[in-house]
Amino acid sequence: MPEHSPLDVPEGDPFGPHNLPYGVFSTPAGTDPRVGVRYGASVLDTAAVAAALGSPHAALLAAPTLAPLMAAGRPVWQAVRAEVTAWLTDLAHRAAVEPHLHELDRVALHMPFEVGDYVDFYSSEHHAANVGRIFRPAEEPLTPNWKHLPIGYHGRSGTIVPSGTPVTRPAGQRMGAPDDPEPGLPGPVFGPSVRLDIEAEVGFVVGVPSPMGTPVPRTDFRAHVFGLCLVNDWSARDVQPWEQRPLGPHQAKSFATSLAHWITPLDALEAARVAPPERTHPLLPYLDDTGAGEQPGGYDLRLEVRVNGEPVSRPPFASMYWTAAQQLAHMTVNGASVRTGDLYASGTVSGPEPDEVGSLLELTKGKGPWLADGDVVEIDGWAPGPDGLRIALGGVRGQVKPTGWTPQER
Amino acid sequence: MPEHSPLDVPEGDPFGPHNLPYGVFSTPAGTDPRVGVRYGASVLDTAAVAAALGSPHAALLAAPTLAPLMAAGRPVWQAVRAEVTAWLTDLAHRAAVEPHLHELDRVALHMPFEVGDYVDFYSSEHHAANVGRIFRPAEEPLTPNWKHLPIGYHGRSGTIVPSGTPVTRPAGQRMGAPDDPEPGLPGPVFGPSVRLDIEAEVGFVVGVPSPMGTPVPRTDFRAHVFGLCLVNDWSARDVQPWEQRPLGPHQAKSFATSLAHWITPLDALEAARVAPPERTHPLLPYLDDTGAGEQPGGYDLRLEVRVNGEPVSRPPFASMYWTAAQQLAHMTVNGASVRTGDLYASGTVSGPEPDEVGSLLELTKGKGPWLADGDVVEIDGWAPGPDGLRIALGGVRGQVKPTGWTPQER
Repeated sequence: MPEHSPLDVPEGDPFGPHNLPYGVFSTPAGTDPRVGVRYGASVLDTAAVAAALGSPHAALLAAPTLAPLMAAGRPVWQAVRAEVTAWLTDLAHRAAVEPHLHELDRVALHMPFEVGDYVDFYSSEHHAANVGRIFRPAEEPLTPNWKHLPIGYHGRSGTIVPSGTPVTRPAGQRMGAPDDPEPGLPGPVFGPSVRLDIEAEVGFVVGVPSPMGTPVPRTDFRAHVFGLCLVNDWSARDVQPWEQRPLGPHQAKSFATSLAHWITPLDALEAARVAPPERTHPLLPYLDDTGAGEQPGGYDLRLEVRVNGEPVSRPPFASMYWTAAQQLAHMTVNGASVRTGDLYASGTVSGPEPDEVGSLLELTKGKGPWLADGDVVEIDGWAPGPDGLRIALGGVRGQVKPTGWTPQER
Repeated sequence: MPEHSPLDVPEGDPFGPHNLPYGVFSTPAGTDPRVGVRYGASVLDTAAVAAALGSPHAALLAAPTLAPLMAAGRPVWQAVRAEVTAWLTDLAHRAAVEPHLHELDRVALHMPFEVGDYVDFYSSEHHAANVGRIFRPAEEPLTPNWKHLPIGYHGRSGTIVPSGTPVTRPAGQRMGAPDDPEPGLPGPVFGPSVRLDIEAEVGFVVGVPSPMGTPVPRTDFRAHVFGLCLVNDWSARDVQPWEQRPLGPHQAKSFATSLAHWITPLDALEAARVAPPERTHPLLPYLDDTGAGEQPGGYDLRLEVRVNGEPVSRPPFASMYWTAAQQLAHMTVNGASVRTGDLYASGTVSGPEPDEVGSLLELTKGKGPWLADGDVVEIDGWAPGPDGLRIALGGVRGQVKPTGWTPQER
């Protein structure tokens, strides 16, 4: 019997050869950040293998970010994926590959790419209706535009951090509320947020750019989008209602957004494609995905949110009303370009059931409890893969740190 | 008599030695993009002069973007400004400098820096009230938060283009309206915007970054902000009211934002500093600029908007309620970082008078006419300088091109 090899991942491992998400890692031995592929409990140094085997993609894989690979386009994505699959599964490569598998807990994982523009959508009907009922109780839960376009807004890309980065509780303005330390003041009060929340989302990573003035049709989605990953859009629920009229959320969201280390290529998720929910309103042609022959635009991703290790919710991504292909088409239909590294997120993933919602706001119907200092939030997920296998998504994790400043004194 | 030298700018030239804005240029002869300073009707190749004279800042000035200079910090900004001033005014340098002045119309001007995050504020009380009356006629013109915090939102940085770049008329969804080609439809219609507008703004350019979790106090504004420039925030007024509830403007703004080529250093604008309007509401300490000893936070910039060469408005920046220092403090008070290259704009500059407003929306009270294909919009500006001189701001110019696509057919 040969001794155990990291090449032999257990059968059915959700990070097996049918998955192969991309990230950026370095080792304590001093290899510079480079492209890695997660395989079982290891990271494959694709740069080293590519160099050893004379791959034509060695330069792309030696980069300190996924951006060059992302920009290379779908034919290259497919070629590299086929190459990596062969490296990991073809016994002929075993000797060349095995030395370049590093145990996951012995490497440092980095931000996988520099984010260009970050757009956050609002595409779960259940979430939008839940939030509408809490924030605007006197009105219809969905605004009149909701079923006609995927509502979204730009978020702050400079504060997107990789999984594991601690998140400092934001401070901000809020109106006096029953749980405020200083209720009843005539104006807003200021202090650390007392309603810190999360939003479990799925992010889509733009690989191939588009020029200004040339909308990307819905059907070109897979030519532009490299992959997807889990996102936690941290939110201050006391700051948000006070600040957001009329131009939308700003300080309530801009303090931090957490991104998973691993980007799952869309080509790994073929078996997870599903039709989105039935469209209840007619759609304009650039968004209309109800035609015969339309490929299913949804993805059957099953998320799980844990707080301090305790599962609190299991949001089903398949329930999202608007698809990532529609979001991309909408984002560019006015002539806006996309760039390599642009990230757009789905909005909070909430299903119809009370234990399927992607935020504490919904889970507690706006009443809390909210996140405490020291709380650890983890979002994981998986998708159906080929042959009944599971495709695990890279998790996103963050611990809440106390506010470290007292701006009142400034 | 010596022949005319480009070093001899006319007395009182608003781009004289008291101004010296920075940009990035290249020459047809093949010099790579590099840092230039505008001087009269010329551009000084600061990289070449610095190299010729052995300046310690030669590397910063040879960069193809202002970013390295912007990141270097205020002591370096002041040292470089003093150096450039000496180069242009000290006869001892004449022979070394003169060959490196290029006529403005013989160089190509480039995007002066890559924009990180772009935040657009909404800080003119006159503008906010005018827009509130047009978009929300049944409500108070100012939302309850307006006098307590500088409202702002993130815009799209990937579609910020340098002055002179043509702007393609966006297409988008809008509700049926009296001037629609297809009024009375049950849902939104789609097509090229029929209410294309501008917003005359002033942008502030972040040089020195701040880390996450460390707010930038109002009083550190000049240690972080490198300079300012004119901005045109093109807006589709038919798309905006339909899309913007509840998360704010998106497609109505994300198609293009025009940036001037020239960044005016704050150190050139000492004589233009003025107190902002009287504060009508008490401010939280991090925003309160009414204390004794507070330096004046406003800038007396006089803008002019021209459409097809015809002046249509003269917005006074001194009338802005919220200052750039307050905006920076607010943007970071929740713990958000800023990066070198972040841009934040004032919001539309509108004064109290009908011919002082910064948008056609206000100028025509929401009735139009709006911009037609082929229209050229120019925004210029100036500020009082030392000794009664004027400091010209670099203008921002754009011509409207027709929509070049028909997304209905996709």
